[in-house]
Amino acid sequence: MRLDERLNNELRKVEIISGFVKHPEGSVLVSFGDTKVICSASVEDRVPPFMRNQGKGWITAEYSMLPRATEQRTIRESSKGKVTGRTMEIQRLIGRALRSVVNLDALGERTIWVDCDVIQADGGTRTASISGAYVAVGLAVQKLLADEKIAESPLLGQLAAVSVGVSAEGEALLDLNYQEDSTASVDMNVVMTSAGELVEVQGTGEEATFTRAQMNDMLDLAEKGIKEIFTIQSDVLNAASEARKEQMSDV
Amino acid sequence: MRLDERLNNELRKVEIISGFVKHPEGSVLVSFGDTKVICSASVEDRVPPFMRNQGKGWITAEYSMLPRATEQRTIRESSKGKVTGRTMEIQRLIGRALRSVVNLDALGERTIWVDCDVIQADGGTRTASISGAYVAVGLAVQKLLADEKIAESPLLGQLAAVSVGVSAEGEALLDLNYQEDSTASVDMNVVMTSAGELVEVQGTGEEATFTRAQMNDMLDLAEKGIKEIFTIQSDVLNAASEARKEQMSDV
Amino acid sequence: MRLDERLNNELRKVEIISGFVKHPEGSVLVSFGDTKVICSASVEDRVPPFMRNQGKGWITAEYSMLPRATEQRTIRESSKGKVTGRTMEIQRLIGRALRSVVNLDALGERTIWVDCDVIQADGGTRTASISGAYVAVGLAVQKLLADEKIAESPLLGQLAAVSVGVSAEGEALLDLNYQEDSTASVDMNVVMTSAGELVEVQGTGEEATFTRAQMNDMLDLAEKGIKEIFTIQSDVLNAASEARKEQMSDV
Amino acid sequence: MRLDERLNNELRKVEIISGFVKHPEGSVLVSFGDTKVICSASVEDRVPPFMRNQGKGWITAEYSMLPRATEQRTIRESSKGKVTGRTMEIQRLIGRALRSVVNLDALGERTIWVDCDVIQADGGTRTASISGAYVAVGLAVQKLLADEKIAESPLLGQLAAVSVGVSAEGEALLDLNYQEDSTASVDMNVVMTSAGELVEVQGTGEEATFTRAQMNDMLDLAEKGIKEIFTIQSDVLNAASEARKEQMSDV
Amino acid sequence: MRLDERLNNELRKVEIISGFVKHPEGSVLVSFGDTKVICSASVEDRVPPFMRNQGKGWITAEYSMLPRATEQRTIRESSKGKVTGRTMEIQRLIGRALRSVVNLDALGERTIWVDCDVIQADGGTRTASISGAYVAVGLAVQKLLADEKIAESPLLGQLAAVSVGVSAEGEALLDLNYQEDSTASVDMNVVMTSAGELVEVQGTGEEATFTRAQMNDMLDLAEKGIKEIFTIQSDVLNAASEARKEQMSDV
Amino acid sequence: MRLDERLNNELRKVEIISGFVKHPEGSVLVSFGDTKVICSASVEDRVPPFMRNQGKGWITAEYSMLPRATEQRTIRESSKGKVTGRTMEIQRLIGRALRSVVNLDALGERTIWVDCDVIQADGGTRTASISGAYVAVGLAVQKLLADEKIAESPLLGQLAAVSVGVSAEGEALLDLNYQEDSTASVDMNVVMTSAGELVEVQGTGEEATFTRAQMNDMLDLAEKGIKEIFTIQSDVLNAASEARKEQMSDV
Repeated sequence: MRLDERLNNELRKVEIISGFVKHPEGSVLVSFGDTKVICSASVEDRVPPFMRNQGKGWITAEYSMLPRATEQRTIRESSKGKVTGRTMEIQRLIGRALRSVVNLDALGERTIWVDCDVIQADGGTRTASISGAYVAVGLAVQKLLADEKIAESPLLGQLAAVSVGVSAEGEALLDLNYQEDSTASVDMNVVMTSAGELVEVQGTGEEATFTRAQMNDMLDLAEKGIKEIFTIQSDVLNAASEARKEQMSDV
Repeated sequence: MRLDERLNNELRKVEIISGFVKHPEGSVLVSFGDTKVICSASVEDRVPPFMRNQGKGWITAEYSMLPRATEQRTIRESSKGKVTGRTMEIQRLIGRALRSVVNLDALGERTIWVDCDVIQADGGTRTASISGAYVAVGLAVQKLLADEKIAESPLLGQLAAVSVGVSAEGEALLDLNYQEDSTASVDMNVVMTSAGELVEVQGTGEEATFTRAQMNDMLDLAEKGIKEIFTIQSDVLNAASEARKEQMSDV
Repeated sequence: MRLDERLNNELRKVEIISGFVKHPEGSVLVSFGDTKVICSASVEDRVPPFMRNQGKGWITAEYSMLPRATEQRTIRESSKGKVTGRTMEIQRLIGRALRSVVNLDALGERTIWVDCDVIQADGGTRTASISGAYVAVGLAVQKLLADEKIAESPLLGQLAAVSVGVSAEGEALLDLNYQEDSTASVDMNVVMTSAGELVEVQGTGEEATFTRAQMNDMLDLAEKGIKEIFTIQSDVLNAASEARKEQMSDV
Repeated sequence: MRLDERLNNELRKVEIISGFVKHPEGSVLVSFGDTKVICSASVEDRVPPFMRNQGKGWITAEYSMLPRATEQRTIRESSKGKVTGRTMEIQRLIGRALRSVVNLDALGERTIWVDCDVIQADGGTRTASISGAYVAVGLAVQKLLADEKIAESPLLGQLAAVSVGVSAEGEALLDLNYQEDSTASVDMNVVMTSAGELVEVQGTGEEATFTRAQMNDMLDLAEKGIKEIFTIQSDVLNAASEARKEQMSDV
Repeated sequence: MRLDERLNNELRKVEIISGFVKHPEGSVLVSFGDTKVICSASVEDRVPPFMRNQGKGWITAEYSMLPRATEQRTIRESSKGKVTGRTMEIQRLIGRALRSVVNLDALGERTIWVDCDVIQADGGTRTASISGAYVAVGLAVQKLLADEKIAESPLLGQLAAVSVGVSAEGEALLDLNYQEDSTASVDMNVVMTSAGELVEVQGTGEEATFTRAQMNDMLDLAEKGIKEIFTIQSDVLNAASEARKEQMSDV
Repeated sequence: MRLDERLNNELRKVEIISGFVKHPEGSVLVSFGDTKVICSASVEDRVPPFMRNQGKGWITAEYSMLPRATEQRTIRESSKGKVTGRTMEIQRLIGRALRSVVNLDALGERTIWVDCDVIQADGGTRTASISGAYVAVGLAVQKLLADEKIAESPLLGQLAAVSVGVSAEGEALLDLNYQEDSTASVDMNVVMTSAGELVEVQGTGEEATFTRAQMNDMLDLAEKGIKEIFTIQSDVLNAASEARKEQMSDV
């Protein structure tokens, strides 16, 4: 039994609250247990210089943690004057993953800026961010469609992510919290689409190694967890879509 | 009548939710209408180099806005690689104001880091930050006392702040929202203690000027509003103190 | 009696020498006692990007201190690679204050860069800077008029500033020098126009507070001092204008 | 058949020249076809602050490319004033991978700095870097043993890496060159130990996805290629060890 | 005849005013014609880390120009966030030159910070800076001796510098002003000691070349000019020394 | 006799290998004894903003050392986030020197980026860089001519550089290695054209001085050494030219 009494193949409680802040085109508060991230999707009607005049859009992501999202306060990257390697790795991952399920041609010459700001961290912030960011983008796409800025959804499928690992005792675990993550010998982040295909697999044995068999066990767990997240995402997006329709028919 | 149907001397709805995030020693979500700020107080058992070996403590503040706290997305200061002048001004103000109501000697050789992160902005973010930060510090002090790290509270009084201004029509207004702030000819931030004394008065006529009489009207409004905020702060701190006592007697 | 034998309501010796350096369109050396600042106004025939194509001008200010303007040598901001919060606060204040007395439409699509470089510091550098900067801008405006680049002066009134404070003994003081400033419990900077209106009031009780009555006493002193500075400014600007006329009639 | 006439499961010509530069404790020039990297291992007799007084060592890596290692010249990171996200990702990967085969306790309070400088790039620079860096570290360890600074080798096994991918036509390929990499739909970097265990698996479908079956095919190819690299590494390290012994017996 | 009616071997008017600012241990305003530089020497009772515990001192220099010292306003290096290559070259030159005439052992574990701030530029700012800096250091040494912090002067000789060049017409010129400098085909800076020895010779033909004969002509001119500067320096230092003695005998 | 058994007027072994890396338009590995530098010349079909629309070209240089090119590892400038003064001085020198032998009008609106990356340092890296960079540029020019992008060579003559110095014993030495350089009292870098004219002379007595006679001795040695380098450069460029012709006639 795990410390928080979960089974090895059990997710923490996953919640996605839509419309958490008012200004962004799409916004959610996503929680994976005590990990809480504000994800917002901002639509800008132009693309970065290297994408101009190609008739297609762009999606990029930024990731940050509030200084006291963590047990020990961490120094702000703005105070340090630079973004750490860890942050860069994570925001590149989020952006790349989202682009794999978006038809950039159908988006038109627009950028969707995705901001993932961790307000409370307890392990798995990058996978919670990806899972929440997909919904924030989905909400922004609903708004673009409702505003008739685009004719059809550029979304090619659903996207979610989860972390898996191997405990010090050698057991494969789903959705590690911070304490489990610190003691795990292997840590793997898996991003998948609703078509059941892989988008990113990043497995790391920090000062440790792992076998092909362990890798397969972890991928099996990830697949199970991600499917459950897809259901939660769909419920939120459908509810938002219904609410939007009602609101419009009221007008 | 103002756009949001308030009277000229009326605050927006002010709410302070304590314990909003779990790691900091003190944490609140403060709202002044649609302006929402997470304030956290982190206690560190050492002081910055320039304060060492004086047997006294330090309080410092940092302020930031999520990129999409605002109507238009703003670039992260960490991406720009530097903190803007506006941010520096605000965080210096918050830190200075808090220090005016704390007996640094009674704090011992500790630093309280106050982080004010605006998650949604609608005018008055710096005064909401100060008003919330005071409560976050108060909660951290309660914890220091409960943990018997300090023998008596270093707090010398209560602290709150509000913005006041003069509308384009020349009327003094209390607690301006973003729209009022953009069109006001004068903008003043007032910080006061519960002893009725002034801590900071910062009045600015951007491309405009104001008279001594207008200044006095604004100070009167500020005083009225700040007194109402004191009550809300007290209620939150008292409730937290009660809860803590109950929790301890349960043990 | 004050340390330098002044009365509480007495300015230090204020001197403004015009044409101190040869390249700028307007240039002065301003002294408030031992505080000495080179203020220069440089006219550039374009505006920053955010102001373009609006047919109006812009005024912006930069402030710096030579490393050994102070008793202890301070590190250059260029060596540190960043401008400190204090410098940013001051240069934002100077720019904002100057813009309140300039009709930016009458300036045309031009920028006036005001540089305030403190060569010797003894308290009140920001208020000396504003008082000198106004004259530097006035000289640059005379040149723009003489060169027939603008048809009428964009200046809407005169601008000056002074610091006031409350001593440790509770007495309101005008124009504090460094030693008085270090021991004062309250420090206030006041910027006014020749129409007798306020432009900026920034009162700060670092680890102290002040009453409305003290605030009023300080504002009274400030008003007295600023009026005396207006006379000195006028004399310099009139002399320069006369000299320019003579020089032109010689040609 | 591939563009350079290799089979899908065939490595490019891999060469490792030891002692390429004279100052480092260990140094190689590693080539994977036209990709050429200078790897050097520098031993420093102290550890970074966060590792002090634990009686154990540290290994860290830095990665860079000469500006014209690539087809188009790229701007130096020193000129930009910051290290890009891509560089950070790579140098974190190299360091982490090396640490997985080093017993840091046996290294003593020393740091091994590994520098991987790409002088010519044609795809697979990070995996060539890891494979060369292992040999550079091995040479430095030989020197530490010969100088009797350590009593036994801290190396726990051999380490090598290779890139694999899926071509646009859906075929799994081993050791992609630049042209193949640009058109591949999936790119995966695999790091393994001579014990046949995985250290890192980083698979990415940039704007694409991949199946579990494709992932397994790629891992099979990687395993085959890495085994061949282990042989080349061993030959170089053995030759260097022999040469060192001869040189010592001459003395 | 030159534009300002000087002979080819004639210096501009050289003036050195001692005690120009009050805080530094040594301070001058040096003018070479319209080039004006504030040089200050600040004594600090410690040395940089790399010099510690060697019982000897250090001298270092910093150089800067006010933004409007030049005909066109230049951006502050503090705003750019970095020091330009030109500035670095010049401050390294000034420091190196001064160290050649100072016995660092006799200075004790002290640093002399030399700040050269150009307030008006008309060519030859680096050579004016060196010539003025020597006097500022001399004044600081007088103070160290008077305060009995050192027993004997660490100065080994006098130091001065001048620029020479070859005009577009091929004539060697002494002490070029800005206009001459812009059109000269060769520019050379020469630093010498009062013993008649060379400390630095930096000759540059930007997009041009020069012969050994021209080089010799330039060195002859430089030698003549520098001897004249030595006299001016001596007069200032002697006068200051006399004044100091009188002041002390008054006490 | 010198430590490496050279005569005082003897160069180290100078070698220039052309085509060392494959992507640049011109590339060499230049060695002066154990000093080894990769010089590459990259042609870009545009010029920097300040040169635009003048119908002429630009040449600029960058210089860097691998961290372990030196006996002690040095920190990367990209990690420090800034280029050191030494690097700036050197790259400005290389660029200026190259421009003195190139007719920028004949180059057309193109930039030649010269990158000098020191892979092993043993004194004289800047003069080796210049001597190698000239050949890299020569190779790039051959390619521009062969590709018929320019009609005639923009090269006005040959360019080479060498360091000379005065040993602690007072003897003038040619081409100092690192050990000689560290103990020399004077260090001079001389750049000359094949027309026998000087381009740069930079003589520095760090904490020492030198006489006119010593300067002349050093210049004599430099002239002798540079002539020998001219022969080596010519041989390489002629061989490359022949090879190119053969290759073209084969087609």
